[in-house]
Amino acid sequence: MSPGVGGEKECQGYAARDKSGHLAPFEFKRRAPGPKDVSLRISCCGVCHSDLHQIRGEWGGEIYPMVPGHEIVGIVEEVGSIVTRFKPGDRVGVGCMVDSCRKCDACKNKVEQYCLKGAVFTYNSKAHDGKNTYGGYSNYMVITEDFALHVPENLPLDAAAPLLCAGITVYSPMKYYQMESGGKNFGVVGLGGLGHIAAKIAKAMGMHVTVISTSPSKEQEAKKVLGADNFIFSKDEKQMEAAKATLDFIIDTVSVLHPVDPYLDLLRTNGKLILVGLSPGQMQFIPIPVVLGRKTIGGSLIGGVEETQEMLDFCGKHNIVSEIEKIPIDYINTAMERLEKGHVQNRFVIDCENSFNP
Amino acid sequence: MSPGVGGEKECQGYAARDKSGHLAPFEFKRRAPGPKDVSLRISCCGVCHSDLHQIRGEWGGEIYPMVPGHEIVGIVEEVGSIVTRFKPGDRVGVGCMVDSCRKCDACKNKVEQYCLKGAVFTYNSKAHDGKNTYGGYSNYMVITEDFALHVPENLPLDAAAPLLCAGITVYSPMKYYQMESGGKNFGVVGLGGLGHIAAKIAKAMGMHVTVISTSPSKEQEAKKVLGADNFIFSKDEKQMEAAKATLDFIIDTVSVLHPVDPYLDLLRTNGKLILVGLSPGQMQFIPIPVVLGRKTIGGSLIGGVEETQEMLDFCGKHNIVSEIEKIPIDYINTAMERLEKGHVQNRFVIDCENSFNP
Repeated sequence: MSPGVGGEKECQGYAARDKSGHLAPFEFKRRAPGPKDVSLRISCCGVCHSDLHQIRGEWGGEIYPMVPGHEIVGIVEEVGSIVTRFKPGDRVGVGCMVDSCRKCDACKNKVEQYCLKGAVFTYNSKAHDGKNTYGGYSNYMVITEDFALHVPENLPLDAAAPLLCAGITVYSPMKYYQMESGGKNFGVVGLGGLGHIAAKIAKAMGMHVTVISTSPSKEQEAKKVLGADNFIFSKDEKQMEAAKATLDFIIDTVSVLHPVDPYLDLLRTNGKLILVGLSPGQMQFIPIPVVLGRKTIGGSLIGGVEETQEMLDFCGKHNIVSEIEKIPIDYINTAMERLEKGHVQNRFVIDCENSFNP
Repeated sequence: MSPGVGGEKECQGYAARDKSGHLAPFEFKRRAPGPKDVSLRISCCGVCHSDLHQIRGEWGGEIYPMVPGHEIVGIVEEVGSIVTRFKPGDRVGVGCMVDSCRKCDACKNKVEQYCLKGAVFTYNSKAHDGKNTYGGYSNYMVITEDFALHVPENLPLDAAAPLLCAGITVYSPMKYYQMESGGKNFGVVGLGGLGHIAAKIAKAMGMHVTVISTSPSKEQEAKKVLGADNFIFSKDEKQMEAAKATLDFIIDTVSVLHPVDPYLDLLRTNGKLILVGLSPGQMQFIPIPVVLGRKTIGGSLIGGVEETQEMLDFCGKHNIVSEIEKIPIDYINTAMERLEKGHVQNRFVIDCENSFNP
């Protein structure tokens, strides 16, 4: 079944219907592309840990049926009459957002991710026309060109998909917290989808990269595949002690509650620990060393459209993509189980192009 | 009894002898001024809350007998042969530090307060010659000119004394966290010694100042005396709710454990909550709003020598001094009791000049 040209688009996808989070085939319509829209055949979609949280309604505000997916890459099929940045056949990416209010300070400052009133997320959200948004576990999509991104020609589409969320989530704080200047010592906690891309980007920015992991088995990958300079097995107190006060920055990708004082101890004076995982609940820290060392605990959420393009271009220039395990859509429920258990090397990417009927 | 000219200096002071923290007269010697030293007759010394913690050994590492005091102002009596920046009769200030290693990155970067190996604090510390340091609850002092400060001519010495610790403690984070640029909304939590000076300095920097206090009775002082634009009684949920997401920066001067989530809620996107109090124990915060709003929890400790001079000059230019209650030294134990109970308007300052024998 083809979405057809002109008019509303008949689309195929996989949706969760309830908090079981079980994903099953789902047919739905996307809006007829407007003059400012591009439509795309989805090639691949990355599987983000937040997909798992949301299909199960763990963050609240869930809208079913829910078609997840916000690490979307594809090929432009049609462009509206006033579209200027895309043409049919272009490689296109869609990340976590598909629209925003465009009027508030955040939007004016090109940090649409912090738009408080009119942010429209790629799925599990309401568009400005009041309709549900559906994500990239699907074959086809319609999006305003203002939120569509160019995927560099030299990057394989499938392995580039995770850059749209995982990539920008770690790139944005590196810029905002000024990490990239002058050979700083950078640490990343957690070597999942976000962490392994953080290590690659940090390395490409010229930082000295330390991977901090609870799995000693990841040392090999960290050093050989990701190019990390150093590896700390965080459950080994001696290794943690030896690394005290050595790092300028840490990006902490863990999205469940965990002690952060051991990581704060790894920071030098003026060091910054940046949280990018959404850990529900209350975190604890000891304030005195934060004061005595002028340390910072900060947060960061994905990135704006312009910065996401900048990140993609940076990754294109440095040949950075995600390490992936490519799966057909009908494997997705098993993939989610494995994701929950941490039984995935880096990032699942769904082969949407070959998973749905032509 | 005069300290005399040349040779070791016979000094009078008040010291704590044990963890009772009781302060009583104490006679001791200070080093004979070297070629790089200045000696000063102490006019006044501010009473900092940290004096109370330290005389009672609450921070550990206490050295008795302990002569506290690190908000010291006086008049230069003698200068060593190679002293260039001071001459007899100059108004001079001494803050929290009297020396540092001068070799580490912190010292090279003029943030001697973060010198990890050789920082010598004004009291309760060991000088590089291995001798105990004694603070400003005293009549006389000897210090290297490298850590001595000029007190602007237009500021009354007694009310300027608290600038040496309280003033720099709030000024330094305003500079480091880039608060002073362009009319930002600034909040200060707590209206004690630090908080009331923070309000004055922030106002002079052109910020819109909100005082946040648990004492509704402080509104009058905040607005009339300190020039604050706004006052929030933090126990009033309606006032806190109305002020949500309005502030760019908050300096939190509270030095006992307290909930910080209500203050994080007052911050806008990119807002920064800076802790300057040394609260023992573990603090809690909810990380998700920190991530979603790219907020920061940071720390800051006093300031370097150069920055302290900059702060004094700034206060001179804007006529900023502390609100004080001047006391004779023999009132100090009562003053400490009142300080502990919060029964002091802003800052006690000891009239050293008239408290000891001539």
